[in-house]
Amino acid sequence: MELDPDACRARFAAARVARLATCGVDARPRLVPVTFAADAATVVTAVDHKPKRTTELRRLRDIAQNPAVAFLVDEYADDWDRLWWVRADAHARVVTAGAEHADAVARLVARYPQYAGRPPEGPVIVAVVERWTGWAARA
Amino acid sequence: MELDPDACRARFAAARVARLATCGVDARPRLVPVTFAADAATVVTAVDHKPKRTTELRRLRDIAQNPAVAFLVDEYADDWDRLWWVRADAHARVVTAGAEHADAVARLVARYPQYAGRPPEGPVIVAVVERWTGWAARA
Repeated sequence: MELDPDACRARFAAARVARLATCGVDARPRLVPVTFAADAATVVTAVDHKPKRTTELRRLRDIAQNPAVAFLVDEYADDWDRLWWVRADAHARVVTAGAEHADAVARLVARYPQYAGRPPEGPVIVAVVERWTGWAARA
Repeated sequence: MELDPDACRARFAAARVARLATCGVDARPRLVPVTFAADAATVVTAVDHKPKRTTELRRLRDIAQNPAVAFLVDEYADDWDRLWWVRADAHARVVTAGAEHADAVARLVARYPQYAGRPPEGPVIVAVVERWTGWAARA
C-alpha cells in the first residue's frame, strides 16, 4: 500500500539513519548513509566528526552543482509483510555558517545524544522536501 | 577505518537489503531499497512481485539513459563504534530475457526463500562493479 505524505513524514522522522543520494555534473549517483533531523518540510544533515574519505565530501560538490537529492529510509525484514520504505525527493543547499547552520546543528544535537559533547562543526545540508513517497507491505 | 575491497565484498554480499541509486537524463537521483545477489564482480536485482508504484520503474528508464548506478549497504547502531557501510559503484544494464536473465533470477531465488514459490518475472538489473568503497568505525 502507498503511504500518504503524513505517514511518510512520521515514519521518516522517527528513523535513526537515512541514505542520501546526490548526482553532480558527472552524472554519477553518489550514495552515503547519514544521520539527520526532519520536520514536515525539511531534512538536515551535517558533516560531522565520523571519519570521512575525502571523496565522501563529493556530496557537497554534487549539491553545489545539482541541488536535486533524494533521502531514503527503509526497513528490511525476512518477513516481507513487514517491509516499508519512505523517500524524500528534495532540493538541497550547503550551509557553512550563520543562524541556519546553528539551527540545523541544534536539531541534530537534539536528536542524537552522540553529538552532545561533540556537535557537528562542518557544513550542513539543508534540504527542502518537494515530494514524499512511501510504501508499506501492510498498514 | 577504510575497508579493503575484499572486506567490502564480503560485508556487501552478506547483507539482505541494499539501496540502489540511479540518475537519468533529468539529473534527479532516484533511490529504492532492493533485494539483490552479489558476487565479487557483479550485483543483480530484479523487478519482483512486491508492489511497485509505476514511478518506481523509473529505475529501469534511468539505467537505459545512464548506466552509472550505486548500491549501498549500511548498518546503523546507536553505538557509533559499530557503524559501517559499503558502496558499490557500478555500470548497470537491464536484461529482460534469456540465459543472463535466468541466471540472475536463479541467484536471487537461491538467496531469498521468499522467492522460492514466486521467482521474479520482471526485468533484472545486472550491474558490473567498478569500485568497492567501505568504511567501518572499527574492524
